[in-house]
Amino acid sequence: MAMSNPNVAELLAKAQKPGEEALRLHPLYRGKLEVTPKCAIRSCDDFAVWYSPGVAAPCRDIAANPERVFDHTNKANFVAVVSDGTRVLGLGDIGPHAALPVMEGKAVLFKYLGGVDAFPICLGTKDPEEIIQACKWLEPSFGGINLEDIAKPKCFYILDRLRKEMAIPVWHDDQQGTAAVTLAGLINALKIVGKEKTAVRITLIGVGAANVAVVRVLIKAGFPPENILMVDTRGILYRDRDDLGSPENEFKRLICNVTNPKQKTGDIAAALKGADVCIALAKSGPGVIKPDWIAAMAKEAVVFACA
Amino acid sequence: MAMSNPNVAELLAKAQKPGEEALRLHPLYRGKLEVTPKCAIRSCDDFAVWYSPGVAAPCRDIAANPERVFDHTNKANFVAVVSDGTRVLGLGDIGPHAALPVMEGKAVLFKYLGGVDAFPICLGTKDPEEIIQACKWLEPSFGGINLEDIAKPKCFYILDRLRKEMAIPVWHDDQQGTAAVTLAGLINALKIVGKEKTAVRITLIGVGAANVAVVRVLIKAGFPPENILMVDTRGILYRDRDDLGSPENEFKRLICNVTNPKQKTGDIAAALKGADVCIALAKSGPGVIKPDWIAAMAKEAVVFACA
Repeated sequence: MAMSNPNVAELLAKAQKPGEEALRLHPLYRGKLEVTPKCAIRSCDDFAVWYSPGVAAPCRDIAANPERVFDHTNKANFVAVVSDGTRVLGLGDIGPHAALPVMEGKAVLFKYLGGVDAFPICLGTKDPEEIIQACKWLEPSFGGINLEDIAKPKCFYILDRLRKEMAIPVWHDDQQGTAAVTLAGLINALKIVGKEKTAVRITLIGVGAANVAVVRVLIKAGFPPENILMVDTRGILYRDRDDLGSPENEFKRLICNVTNPKQKTGDIAAALKGADVCIALAKSGPGVIKPDWIAAMAKEAVVFACA
Repeated sequence: MAMSNPNVAELLAKAQKPGEEALRLHPLYRGKLEVTPKCAIRSCDDFAVWYSPGVAAPCRDIAANPERVFDHTNKANFVAVVSDGTRVLGLGDIGPHAALPVMEGKAVLFKYLGGVDAFPICLGTKDPEEIIQACKWLEPSFGGINLEDIAKPKCFYILDRLRKEMAIPVWHDDQQGTAAVTLAGLINALKIVGKEKTAVRITLIGVGAANVAVVRVLIKAGFPPENILMVDTRGILYRDRDDLGSPENEFKRLICNVTNPKQKTGDIAAALKGADVCIALAKSGPGVIKPDWIAAMAKEAVVFACA
């Protein structure tokens, strides 16, 4: 269907301001996805094979041999893009309906870049236990769950629970997605500047779902945690900071158990001074990091400014 | 994508036994559906409009004006085909995985015949309250719910509850779908034989989800309930029958409050004798109705033998 309307292609060609173009183009399609047959259909007669009565044979086959669900159905290639709309892009808690354009866009990316058939599921609940329950009830239809734009700290809890309790892979895009590309980028960047992963000092700006996953992956990949500092809106995280006692800050407390053993304190500028790597994944947006802070980093510093 | 593979078209052309063909062809596709972009994509650059950063504008628009979800997203044309796999075709309770080939087939029918983008949701629960809860949590993503192949009597209860508690249309295919085409067929058949709806005697064979919906629709359409008999495996339904006291047979008891005022008793043969219309929608399958029973019906009788 893509490119079937030359007017739309013209409009796209003229696009200068993505937001304005998005507002204008979205209503031309009323949704970015369609669910279409991929099996051969010559006429309604073929529904005797794809639907009743023929379809009863694959149904019986799956009932007798559960693993055949991967041969007879879409399950293996269906991914649910699940959100409750509580942390959408930089917009915050805008609700499940307003989150739909993003989740549809993510499904388009899944198909366009990976050939995966993904479907946007925006849930009418924000309760972590209910989100977990909803995902578990959806399990038969899907081969995987991609959690998306769910607020912290519940996103950590939901992911951990689902990974333990579901028989299909579960992934939180804002965590593992970001962490995977960040690690890959860092490994390659360090080759270019000729530095060793065991020697570099790393400062992470922002302690959201993304950087929490990044720090976990970095440590797992062999970057020594004692060389890592993390900075949130109140400054560098250190074990004795007085705001880390609450249950909802538990994930920050756990980070302090392994990083920053010297209990360094201070603001972003202090955290960046002499660092080899800066990974900025904060909600605050551009303009937070000043040029002279970067200048004060180590020679041939690597900066991922992704806010 | 349909017809792109000539070998498959050849295979289909040779199809004689739908069940065997279904078993052979389903694994060639590993699912009958795909979820594809319907928006114009020329390159990854266009994701600045369909995804971040441009997509934030429609998101904000929906957050400020909730009704715009119908302009900016698929919601208006997305239907969830929801089943728990407890009453699939004539196969009974084969579970949610084995139900998937049917639900995918139904989604193909939605798109092929109606242009509606439907998605198969087979739930990992059989509990009526949990099925209701799951549908309600799914509401933001969909414009309608099509319940499918859910066992009776819970299917009646689930439908009634969801119609009261959801803001989007809910339909049970086995009830309203069958009832709508049956009523349409009967209206036209009576024109051909020149009989009036207020005068015809109607016998319904089978008291499952389908015929319960049919009798409701017939009465609502002006067919007098006192001219209607229903027959289940134990014979004609009548008010004083001794098996109608249990809660799960409440739906049969309600039917007896309006149909069969003379408390006629007997088997299918007795119920068909002199009847103008026979609507057979029973699980028992073909061979139940004998030729001489049809011969004993009224002149120019109308027979819908759909079992």
